[in-house]
Amino acid sequence: MTLVEEYLQIRKYSEQICEPLQTEDYVVQPVVDVSPPKWHLGHTTWFFETFILKPFSVNYQVHNDDYNFVFNSYYETVGNRVIRTDRGNLSRPSVNEIYQYRAYVDEAMTKFLAAPLKDEVKELLILGFNHEQQHQELLLTDIKYILGNNPLFPVYSKGKKEVLANETAAGFINIPEGIYEIGYKGDDFSFDNELNRHKVYLHDFSISKTLVSNAQFLEFIKAGGYENFNYWHAEGWDWVKNNHITSPMYWHLIDEEWFNYTFAGLLPIDPDAPVSHLSYYEAYAYASWKGMRLPTEFEWEVAAKSFNWGERWEWTESAYLPYPGFSKAPGAIGEYNGKFMVSQKVLRGASIATPENHSRITYRNFFHPHLRWQYTGIRLVK
Amino acid sequence: MTLVEEYLQIRKYSEQICEPLQTEDYVVQPVVDVSPPKWHLGHTTWFFETFILKPFSVNYQVHNDDYNFVFNSYYETVGNRVIRTDRGNLSRPSVNEIYQYRAYVDEAMTKFLAAPLKDEVKELLILGFNHEQQHQELLLTDIKYILGNNPLFPVYSKGKKEVLANETAAGFINIPEGIYEIGYKGDDFSFDNELNRHKVYLHDFSISKTLVSNAQFLEFIKAGGYENFNYWHAEGWDWVKNNHITSPMYWHLIDEEWFNYTFAGLLPIDPDAPVSHLSYYEAYAYASWKGMRLPTEFEWEVAAKSFNWGERWEWTESAYLPYPGFSKAPGAIGEYNGKFMVSQKVLRGASIATPENHSRITYRNFFHPHLRWQYTGIRLVK
Amino acid sequence: MTLVEEYLQIRKYSEQICEPLQTEDYVVQPVVDVSPPKWHLGHTTWFFETFILKPFSVNYQVHNDDYNFVFNSYYETVGNRVIRTDRGNLSRPSVNEIYQYRAYVDEAMTKFLAAPLKDEVKELLILGFNHEQQHQELLLTDIKYILGNNPLFPVYSKGKKEVLANETAAGFINIPEGIYEIGYKGDDFSFDNELNRHKVYLHDFSISKTLVSNAQFLEFIKAGGYENFNYWHAEGWDWVKNNHITSPMYWHLIDEEWFNYTFAGLLPIDPDAPVSHLSYYEAYAYASWKGMRLPTEFEWEVAAKSFNWGERWEWTESAYLPYPGFSKAPGAIGEYNGKFMVSQKVLRGASIATPENHSRITYRNFFHPHLRWQYTGIRLVK
Amino acid sequence: MTLVEEYLQIRKYSEQICEPLQTEDYVVQPVVDVSPPKWHLGHTTWFFETFILKPFSVNYQVHNDDYNFVFNSYYETVGNRVIRTDRGNLSRPSVNEIYQYRAYVDEAMTKFLAAPLKDEVKELLILGFNHEQQHQELLLTDIKYILGNNPLFPVYSKGKKEVLANETAAGFINIPEGIYEIGYKGDDFSFDNELNRHKVYLHDFSISKTLVSNAQFLEFIKAGGYENFNYWHAEGWDWVKNNHITSPMYWHLIDEEWFNYTFAGLLPIDPDAPVSHLSYYEAYAYASWKGMRLPTEFEWEVAAKSFNWGERWEWTESAYLPYPGFSKAPGAIGEYNGKFMVSQKVLRGASIATPENHSRITYRNFFHPHLRWQYTGIRLVK
Ligand SMILES: [Fe+3]
Ligand SMILES: [Fe+3]
Ligand SMILES: [Fe+3]
Ligand SMILES: [Fe+3]
Repeated sequence: MTLVEEYLQIRKYSEQICEPLQTEDYVVQPVVDVSPPKWHLGHTTWFFETFILKPFSVNYQVHNDDYNFVFNSYYETVGNRVIRTDRGNLSRPSVNEIYQYRAYVDEAMTKFLAAPLKDEVKELLILGFNHEQQHQELLLTDIKYILGNNPLFPVYSKGKKEVLANETAAGFINIPEGIYEIGYKGDDFSFDNELNRHKVYLHDFSISKTLVSNAQFLEFIKAGGYENFNYWHAEGWDWVKNNHITSPMYWHLIDEEWFNYTFAGLLPIDPDAPVSHLSYYEAYAYASWKGMRLPTEFEWEVAAKSFNWGERWEWTESAYLPYPGFSKAPGAIGEYNGKFMVSQKVLRGASIATPENHSRITYRNFFHPHLRWQYTGIRLVK
Repeated sequence: MTLVEEYLQIRKYSEQICEPLQTEDYVVQPVVDVSPPKWHLGHTTWFFETFILKPFSVNYQVHNDDYNFVFNSYYETVGNRVIRTDRGNLSRPSVNEIYQYRAYVDEAMTKFLAAPLKDEVKELLILGFNHEQQHQELLLTDIKYILGNNPLFPVYSKGKKEVLANETAAGFINIPEGIYEIGYKGDDFSFDNELNRHKVYLHDFSISKTLVSNAQFLEFIKAGGYENFNYWHAEGWDWVKNNHITSPMYWHLIDEEWFNYTFAGLLPIDPDAPVSHLSYYEAYAYASWKGMRLPTEFEWEVAAKSFNWGERWEWTESAYLPYPGFSKAPGAIGEYNGKFMVSQKVLRGASIATPENHSRITYRNFFHPHLRWQYTGIRLVK
Repeated sequence: MTLVEEYLQIRKYSEQICEPLQTEDYVVQPVVDVSPPKWHLGHTTWFFETFILKPFSVNYQVHNDDYNFVFNSYYETVGNRVIRTDRGNLSRPSVNEIYQYRAYVDEAMTKFLAAPLKDEVKELLILGFNHEQQHQELLLTDIKYILGNNPLFPVYSKGKKEVLANETAAGFINIPEGIYEIGYKGDDFSFDNELNRHKVYLHDFSISKTLVSNAQFLEFIKAGGYENFNYWHAEGWDWVKNNHITSPMYWHLIDEEWFNYTFAGLLPIDPDAPVSHLSYYEAYAYASWKGMRLPTEFEWEVAAKSFNWGERWEWTESAYLPYPGFSKAPGAIGEYNGKFMVSQKVLRGASIATPENHSRITYRNFFHPHLRWQYTGIRLVK
Repeated sequence: MTLVEEYLQIRKYSEQICEPLQTEDYVVQPVVDVSPPKWHLGHTTWFFETFILKPFSVNYQVHNDDYNFVFNSYYETVGNRVIRTDRGNLSRPSVNEIYQYRAYVDEAMTKFLAAPLKDEVKELLILGFNHEQQHQELLLTDIKYILGNNPLFPVYSKGKKEVLANETAAGFINIPEGIYEIGYKGDDFSFDNELNRHKVYLHDFSISKTLVSNAQFLEFIKAGGYENFNYWHAEGWDWVKNNHITSPMYWHLIDEEWFNYTFAGLLPIDPDAPVSHLSYYEAYAYASWKGMRLPTEFEWEVAAKSFNWGERWEWTESAYLPYPGFSKAPGAIGEYNGKFMVSQKVLRGASIATPENHSRITYRNFFHPHLRWQYTGIRLVK
């Protein structure tokens, strides 16, 4: 596949994700972590325009000068007609205008990519691909949030699966003590946060072959897990109390039966599916209640070749920190990862919302411990 | 005009107000006081369905059971699939679905109104007319807020006037001391808050024939009015400081020239237009700086036959309180006015956003003192 | 009594109020409306130093330059070592230092008052007396708050009465429609907010001779008054829900019996005592439930000569607004009343915490509608 | 030294720390992280009463049943006269009453410790010693906060040093790559968070022999370090903007000269002293600006035998996480450390406020990244 083909394929997939939406669904931002779908479509386009077309494509004409302000997620530089506003308050540019913006940039990119590219541009292009893929996962989870918090519980798509048919026998894998290598090795793309590849010393541990299921998590609920502070971090317990948390996100107890919102609407809980949409606090509390713990990201990376993964992002015990030798790239691109390396937890693996070809055993996802709208799950270590 | 004709005319005007909108503009709620236009369209429909069709129209089939939850503004009773959410987070029902809802109810109403009506129903119908007209003014001001806080400053309509060509000579009218009658008298519709008609004793006062203009208010700004606490209530001064207020809403100082957002886009300030979009605090501070004061609502009502009004809602010094003999109607309708009679200020007159036939010299509008998105203005008394 | 004698008597009473306190009780500020007792002692002293000694007493040496910053309640002007802080965070100046400050200023005042005084000074002096008396009432209610919210419920004084032995027969007084005069008339002191004396027109009303008792209010609680939104303003209902209000302040339901904190400690509710420590919202809801209403401040002033008052501050329906002809005094003294004339309700009468000689039938007290730590009560009108 | 002697010595030191205080200084709680000194004195006493005397001392009579509620820092279990309150709002128990409580418990402990002790009790006793020593450091830093945020800047003690006379040559120490052992080894006391001793793999690094000085940090300020988001984490940059941070805590720019509050009052900055009272965000930004980084806690522990430490708590890059094999003790004691292992950063070393005999090379201190009232400092790694 040529770079142009890859570009067009990735760009098209973002729009395919939005096909089932009504215009109105593109607009809302129910909570600060969720962006309106139309913003994702514009922002990923702005990325190619700003970091490739403007600096490298001779005679490129910016589509609309105001869009830099609207679609820039790095708010440090601001224009002169600044109005403080949130993404969900912006009805304009309209969905149609954003699709026109995408078409305009795609046409310019197609022309630009036809000519030979400098290595520097190729690197930015690949970063742009990965950037758009990251936003594709967010598009799906943000859409789920928008529809799943609507009292009408609208269906997104009857066909979009949220569970894989992974046939895996239960059980634990033993990993022996020793020195292991961690981090990306190879010539393909990786994020800066996967580098440097370096050595860690691990002690013996056993890690589960399977993710915790809904049925297993339901036992925790029934055992009063949400009411017993002993299983929780102090901060997690405050979170439970202040937010009246009694189950994973999207779960509803209706007439004593548990339902959850899915892309196919409100359905009874599937007991065999891996539990999803829980915070790190809940993952930790569940492990605590079982007398086990979560893996570190290093344990996970070492063991992952021995089990199936990719269905849920798996909370690890590790904080999101720089690897030895990590350094930020210069300029705006350098803001990509490093500036988030405090107060977040690492998740490993991938989820059913992760685009194909966008997962690696060394991939480091990260979120604040209270966030639940991603497809997050639990794998135990003992 | 028959009741059916009046019904259809009022209903149609709500939709005409929305004609210039893009679908996306119907959805957002930038601040809590502003509702999404699609909510107004649904809520006014819900009013006729709930208070007329459901109780009085035999065999009426509710359009959608979930809409009661979505469009009820009286949240005291709730259904069983309750999700806490704000209006601006709801992408569904879609704009099309709401227009279908309107069509469905309008058809049912047209049939229902063809038959003879009980007096009780007639009263509810007239209340429904007035209710929809109140929401028409909100529709316009909410649309202005949504577009006027968008960094692209989209045009609503080049033709929609926000200033009347009132030729009025400046000057003051003297009203002599004495007993005056206040409140609605007549056989047409009035709100419960305009009753009972009662006597008040007024002392001598002089009231301006004209509203304060943009040019006059600009003098206050240039004289440092927003930086001198002496002109302000303590509460108003806190509001200025906490919100960094330096001008009326929609004003922007660009390269040392003042512009304001209007339905026709961002335009230079018109010096002769009556100043608009200011809080009670600013109206009071301006009057203070001039060594004058605002009228009470009683002074206003007595003097209003002697000057032109209807261009801006005029802040009065009066708090929104019940008239002697006021009593709430029984049931949900009784919630209409009485429960808001604390912590609000009365505004008198009407504005360019007020529907025709929806203004009276006894009409009492009311808002919290910090609110500015209505067409509010200043008339002075000395 | 000479002015010096009056000065010393008033100053002494502030200290007598504090006699039962431990040093620690002088320091804390549990909520923003309650000031630490030591602050009241310092602030009232600062008032005489700032408005009398500094401008009028030749060669007066300021006690401590930093105290202007600490004891000024008008924060508009600030010094150059500004640290943002709240009163309850200041352990220094110590209680002893503040008593020394009082002694120092009292000595200087005693000398100063021995010489003949200009009228301007006399007026400021009388204002200082009234200012200190206002803070004496706050001292008592703030002390009650500090001790009454301590889990040890310490006794302030077994002897301090919170109920008067008013033997009043129940019943209503009828006041006929007509023009009445309102506001202060006479040559003694009054606040600027009691002026101008002016005419109002009142309609017929009947007002209760007695205040609502604890036993009567208990019936409201038992009838579910706190759970039925129909009796409440929308704003009051939000306040009830957000703050989980189920009774007047200081009430505790212990083993199904109602107790309340009093200056003598935690005691069973006295059924015959007038109910106290409730918000305007509760007063309104109670009246609503009884099918009656609260008096306006004008009705109260006209009727007050016909009933006993002075046991509880009585919430009125009136908002705190300027009388016709009201004008602010120039300078800092002008900030005294006028700048608070928005968003507050008027209370009339006086309470058991009001110092002797500090009540008048024209006195206008005012608080925000949610506040309850004053001795507030209910009188009904029908 | 016998256990009784050690007990009495530690107990006495807490009271010695408080000797310079006025009664008022014991009471206030200016921010949530700072506790009133009287609370520390009561809480450390409650610890011995609750975990030793009550369960193990036959016939021990609890001093005051209400104190469990007041001095328990684990609020999970509550009594029946619960009033929600903050520590700084409690004027009672008085300082005298708390000293009486200390004397009562000390007498009972002295008697109890005279008899032979079970191992279990010995362990709890040693934990109680260390617990009180931890609170001694907090006592000092809380007192500094209380006095240092008072506009009068009262002196705590002219003699209490905040800088050590460490004569250390500047320069860096190189540590070679390899496997190292981390965590407590020995038979004396350590906290559970220092266990298990385990292996880590470290890569080559060079660590500074000295802490960053005030003069060096001033260069960062002068270079605009607080105004350039490139040096900061996104979260740190928000913290700087929202809190208007322009220098370390206790620093004041007065007439273009930098002062800082010390135990001896407000003094000019000592350029040679190690910079103190900064957040992790500031430590990270400074390192970033220098093109270096902070050490991990493992690097620190390995290198620490080669440099002087103990003057400032040194921010590390490490998040506070459990060591391999960490497990919580059963019961309330188990709440000691484990429940805080999320969202905090590890600090290593000790400070001039740390009690003698309360520091170890394996000691893990931890705080949230924004906190500054401890004696925190910076050591660089390259
Ligand atoms: Fe992005
Ligand atoms: Fe409505
Ligand atoms: Fe005062
Ligand atoms: Fe403790």
